[in-house]
Amino acid sequence: MRENRLRTLFAQQQLALSGWVSMGNALLAEVIAHSGYDAVTVDLQHGPFSIDAALPMLQAISSTPAVPLVRCSENSLGEINKLLDAGAYGVICPLINTAADAERFVRACHYSPRGGRSYGPARGFLYGGADYFTHANATLLTLAMIETREGYANAEAILQTPDLDGIFIGPSDLAIELGLAPDAYDDVRLNEAIDHLLALARKLGKYVGIFAGTMEMAQRMKGIGMDLVVPGTDIQQIKAEGARRVSALR
Amino acid sequence: MRENRLRTLFAQQQLALSGWVSMGNALLAEVIAHSGYDAVTVDLQHGPFSIDAALPMLQAISSTPAVPLVRCSENSLGEINKLLDAGAYGVICPLINTAADAERFVRACHYSPRGGRSYGPARGFLYGGADYFTHANATLLTLAMIETREGYANAEAILQTPDLDGIFIGPSDLAIELGLAPDAYDDVRLNEAIDHLLALARKLGKYVGIFAGTMEMAQRMKGIGMDLVVPGTDIQQIKAEGARRVSALR
Amino acid sequence: MRENRLRTLFAQQQLALSGWVSMGNALLAEVIAHSGYDAVTVDLQHGPFSIDAALPMLQAISSTPAVPLVRCSENSLGEINKLLDAGAYGVICPLINTAADAERFVRACHYSPRGGRSYGPARGFLYGGADYFTHANATLLTLAMIETREGYANAEAILQTPDLDGIFIGPSDLAIELGLAPDAYDDVRLNEAIDHLLALARKLGKYVGIFAGTMEMAQRMKGIGMDLVVPGTDIQQIKAEGARRVSALR
Amino acid sequence: MRENRLRTLFAQQQLALSGWVSMGNALLAEVIAHSGYDAVTVDLQHGPFSIDAALPMLQAISSTPAVPLVRCSENSLGEINKLLDAGAYGVICPLINTAADAERFVRACHYSPRGGRSYGPARGFLYGGADYFTHANATLLTLAMIETREGYANAEAILQTPDLDGIFIGPSDLAIELGLAPDAYDDVRLNEAIDHLLALARKLGKYVGIFAGTMEMAQRMKGIGMDLVVPGTDIQQIKAEGARRVSALR
Amino acid sequence: MRENRLRTLFAQQQLALSGWVSMGNALLAEVIAHSGYDAVTVDLQHGPFSIDAALPMLQAISSTPAVPLVRCSENSLGEINKLLDAGAYGVICPLINTAADAERFVRACHYSPRGGRSYGPARGFLYGGADYFTHANATLLTLAMIETREGYANAEAILQTPDLDGIFIGPSDLAIELGLAPDAYDDVRLNEAIDHLLALARKLGKYVGIFAGTMEMAQRMKGIGMDLVVPGTDIQQIKAEGARRVSALR
Amino acid sequence: MRENRLRTLFAQQQLALSGWVSMGNALLAEVIAHSGYDAVTVDLQHGPFSIDAALPMLQAISSTPAVPLVRCSENSLGEINKLLDAGAYGVICPLINTAADAERFVRACHYSPRGGRSYGPARGFLYGGADYFTHANATLLTLAMIETREGYANAEAILQTPDLDGIFIGPSDLAIELGLAPDAYDDVRLNEAIDHLLALARKLGKYVGIFAGTMEMAQRMKGIGMDLVVPGTDIQQIKAEGARRVSALR
Repeated sequence: MRENRLRTLFAQQQLALSGWVSMGNALLAEVIAHSGYDAVTVDLQHGPFSIDAALPMLQAISSTPAVPLVRCSENSLGEINKLLDAGAYGVICPLINTAADAERFVRACHYSPRGGRSYGPARGFLYGGADYFTHANATLLTLAMIETREGYANAEAILQTPDLDGIFIGPSDLAIELGLAPDAYDDVRLNEAIDHLLALARKLGKYVGIFAGTMEMAQRMKGIGMDLVVPGTDIQQIKAEGARRVSALR
Repeated sequence: MRENRLRTLFAQQQLALSGWVSMGNALLAEVIAHSGYDAVTVDLQHGPFSIDAALPMLQAISSTPAVPLVRCSENSLGEINKLLDAGAYGVICPLINTAADAERFVRACHYSPRGGRSYGPARGFLYGGADYFTHANATLLTLAMIETREGYANAEAILQTPDLDGIFIGPSDLAIELGLAPDAYDDVRLNEAIDHLLALARKLGKYVGIFAGTMEMAQRMKGIGMDLVVPGTDIQQIKAEGARRVSALR
Repeated sequence: MRENRLRTLFAQQQLALSGWVSMGNALLAEVIAHSGYDAVTVDLQHGPFSIDAALPMLQAISSTPAVPLVRCSENSLGEINKLLDAGAYGVICPLINTAADAERFVRACHYSPRGGRSYGPARGFLYGGADYFTHANATLLTLAMIETREGYANAEAILQTPDLDGIFIGPSDLAIELGLAPDAYDDVRLNEAIDHLLALARKLGKYVGIFAGTMEMAQRMKGIGMDLVVPGTDIQQIKAEGARRVSALR
Repeated sequence: MRENRLRTLFAQQQLALSGWVSMGNALLAEVIAHSGYDAVTVDLQHGPFSIDAALPMLQAISSTPAVPLVRCSENSLGEINKLLDAGAYGVICPLINTAADAERFVRACHYSPRGGRSYGPARGFLYGGADYFTHANATLLTLAMIETREGYANAEAILQTPDLDGIFIGPSDLAIELGLAPDAYDDVRLNEAIDHLLALARKLGKYVGIFAGTMEMAQRMKGIGMDLVVPGTDIQQIKAEGARRVSALR
Repeated sequence: MRENRLRTLFAQQQLALSGWVSMGNALLAEVIAHSGYDAVTVDLQHGPFSIDAALPMLQAISSTPAVPLVRCSENSLGEINKLLDAGAYGVICPLINTAADAERFVRACHYSPRGGRSYGPARGFLYGGADYFTHANATLLTLAMIETREGYANAEAILQTPDLDGIFIGPSDLAIELGLAPDAYDDVRLNEAIDHLLALARKLGKYVGIFAGTMEMAQRMKGIGMDLVVPGTDIQQIKAEGARRVSALR
Repeated sequence: MRENRLRTLFAQQQLALSGWVSMGNALLAEVIAHSGYDAVTVDLQHGPFSIDAALPMLQAISSTPAVPLVRCSENSLGEINKLLDAGAYGVICPLINTAADAERFVRACHYSPRGGRSYGPARGFLYGGADYFTHANATLLTLAMIETREGYANAEAILQTPDLDGIFIGPSDLAIELGLAPDAYDDVRLNEAIDHLLALARKLGKYVGIFAGTMEMAQRMKGIGMDLVVPGTDIQQIKAEGARRVSALR
């Protein structure tokens, strides 16, 4: 089975960067996959599209070395199975609040006996190879999002879920739950929470990824040793560069 | 944040009319939004399409003064969040049978601390404005469908759900549950049930909307003081006018 | 090969009615095909969609007795061949201004030796039957649109094009070319032109179809013996019924 | 209401064959529906598409005598209702593990009072007929998938679910759960499990369908009296024939 | 009819800026339309999509003050008419090499008697208003691309085409035709050609727009008094910002 | 620039095999690209889809070693340019009847000074590499279809078109034009014509490809030394295997 380069980077303690696609367009996904990112995440939670658009996006990413990840819209075996069958090499699952949530998520991503993933990986074979079934459980990444007070409180139990690879921190939602603004990326309370989660994960030998709302935050996250950093979305990229161009010409 | 004109109409006790789109086409949505309706509802419950088609429909409605509403396919935080992120200014949620259902629905539509809506409103910012996050909870409408015996029995508790704006009556399903035909719009039992729900809502200061299966029913609903009336679907409009044209020429 | 019921109706001098779909949605096409029309025309000239949307529309119409017609976007062998391969049983071609235009159109619709249609009718076989190739030339309808001054002036020559089945009158464009408003359906000059075209076609044994901008015009066209009448578009149906419903409730 | 030919075949104890479409393309669905199968199943569980693609596939199948079935992606009332509204004449529901799962599935497919299916069958009327509501509960097929150890253990209780028409065996998942390879179609343990499920169903007067991973297995399933056999997927068909052609020419 | 703000800006000799969308996604089009551009051009020449994707993009742009423009894929009345019917308020036509090409283009954009545009502006009415037909000829912009040696040589004749609003310079193709690299934006020969075209247009009272391959070029084009400047494509925006973010974090 | 493996095979006088996709689905294209073919041709002539579907198909093929080819729907610079920009590495152009047709086709595929291809190869860069512009003219394949009497008569002149790489024979259309049935693949007249074209091409140092309607014909074409053989379409593959499976089980 094709290796999961993110696992290799994680094992080597090298920072991995993921692009983020929240507009449902396959050419956009391919353009971003050519930007130098180690992975590209197709976001079905806040991206207004479904599997119909995600399939060609995953196919487009597959023509590059970038690892195809998805964020599913919810902790649903049905959706997660379709995305994995479509060739995703990792899943970021939103709103994991309890160890039971995490266990349910892990089970959705693993074949029996570890989990309840149903068999039929059409694009899994095409992208991963003929031995996909044998190695899928050990290859595909599972990252549980910590983004609520409840999830934060249960983080240690969540991180102890067997076969869960790690967590992915949603800083805007976590900030809101801490009573802060969604873009309070510099707030000390938010950053202490991030530090705490990273320390917990390190203690338990799990990986940590995070969405960075600004480039400053991205640099800081790199600095504290995050495994995976997402430096903004496709929409933020378009907006930032568009605003720069328009204002330069006014 | 752009105001929700339906709230204004409701506050002024003026009848609001919503068009209804159950075929997944953005031009159709725009044509209906130009018909003089105060709102247009994109129906993902009985409409055979998903968020991929709903996005351009909501965009098309946004080019008109009509308020973009959706009916979600089920009481799911994942789907509801995507539809709100895509710019819907209100959600009609089917099959609310208990106060717990209603609370779950309200939580899916509100940001923390009131609810668990996840942050990432890409089109929310575009349609609503840069201050979307601050005002979204108070702007977006939440209407719980009462359409089962169980929901009817629990209507008072449902209506007491904090921050639920009101209910939306599904007369065909309610009729079926009362043992009537789905088009028994004139039946006294159905109309007594409707009167009862309206009275309950008035007592509790909540709004009431209804789907009207015929124009006679729509007039009657206007007469009894409904806040929101949907005078039939796009398919009914096409069928009614098509039948009229064909029979006139045979 | 499945018969072309329009040919049968035409031969029996019975009025044929066609629905008209200019919004690219397959469910809409099916709803209109169930309205009692003898045919449904998928309009790729003024409808903002292409073959990608037309295919499922033609498939949907094929599940009903209505004959699937198309209006192509221009007199192009490439597009016409794709539409016929997709199962269209007749083509209305816009802007036929000369006999050469008409000959080119007829050639695009016929296999060699009569024409230059390329072989590969994937859905032709599915909808028409295994003997599609043998009978296609004699089954599929070709209707040339007369809608310009030039086309009107050349109408007799156009109608004499061998194997052209008839003409289809575009009254709005013809009105504009006569210096009238596009909705001058009652103007005597337009109606004299229509009468003239119908008389020419009758003399030469060809069929005549027309788009009717209003129901009054449709009745008049039925009265003068048109073979095929289109009583308005899907958008007109939606608008007419929508306006009726909204105004009744204001 | 249009009859469900599968019910007729089942009642006559004749083997029914279903094609299987897991690529979201309406022309492909129509081609397969013309291959001589009694039914065609649109697979939304392992097929990477959603209702947006399933609608035109169901429409395409509807233009043929093949019965349009779906496999839903999960046991969800929302999705199942949309697929039935879109004209599916039967649902295969994955991962039915308990009698409660089966009851929930049956309720999703039936109108009140038997179930909680919501009313609004737009294409149901077009494909089934104007009396759809009256006969839908008795016409549409419900097949619960047995594919886990838990489901296998609870098979008798599942089969006793009132109004459940039968079961559909997923041999690859069942094999995995038995500790076998997903393609262990010839393994005696798997075949004993299949025999057991068939015997249980016969005893309780229910139908049994199965997916056959190879033609040998399909013949064996025919031999033991299965009611419904799916001899492979569209992807398997393409791969088998493609490999045959390429290797013959190398 | 809704005014064309580009005409107003041009008349006031204010620089107009247009965004450029070459990936077929409606949310992307809306995001770019919110970036402060005066117009957004939907590029069907080098953008790998057709009218099916362009329609929702035009609808999305219509919900903002930005003027919706298109670049058609070729000088074809069929395609141009569909794009105008879909609500485009201006057309940039590639590869205008002769005065005859320009006249053909102008005719495709104007109703009779000036041109041969066919009547049926479904979205024209929705976006432009009920008096669309009366004012369309005077409102919609026509910009002929000069991008070949032949077009450059014939520029004066092209600019004299009655009712042609102006030209749009394609610097990459013009550079290639001058024997330069496609990104030779600073080359003196290219800039002399641009100066010459601008001078010709000024003399003849026509407008000039240009695509700027770099921000430096955009500033220079602003400096010499261009009417319309496109400061790069959506893909260039994504690439520039993506490369900036990735390299900052490596 | 990424090499064109077909050129390498042709230069080595090794038979190249191409799969053929005429249903507009990206997963199907990927499955066929994994079947062992050297190339996969996306057919926009008889395939009922356009660039909107072709883009993700080309992306999907790009994730495999198979060379992505297209057959355009007609000899149109606009369409051909979009397909090349979308990453096609070769174009088969239908209905080349004269040397002028061939020259027009070659010009559409080459940048200046050889041709008039417009600059803007978004996916060309992604699939081909950053030096795409420099090498595109020499890398992309141009194959002119000979399939009419006229084209056959002019074959020598067509083959002498500078920079045309070769011809592609359409045997069904050629058979029809010779007065034979479209599937007269064994007819001596057709085969003499094929031999003649092959000999002409060999004499002039050009390549020859052909569509083979049956496997027998494919073997024969391999035997006479064709450079490129297409052993049937996706639809033929599905039909052949479907019929085999159904008949085996009846």
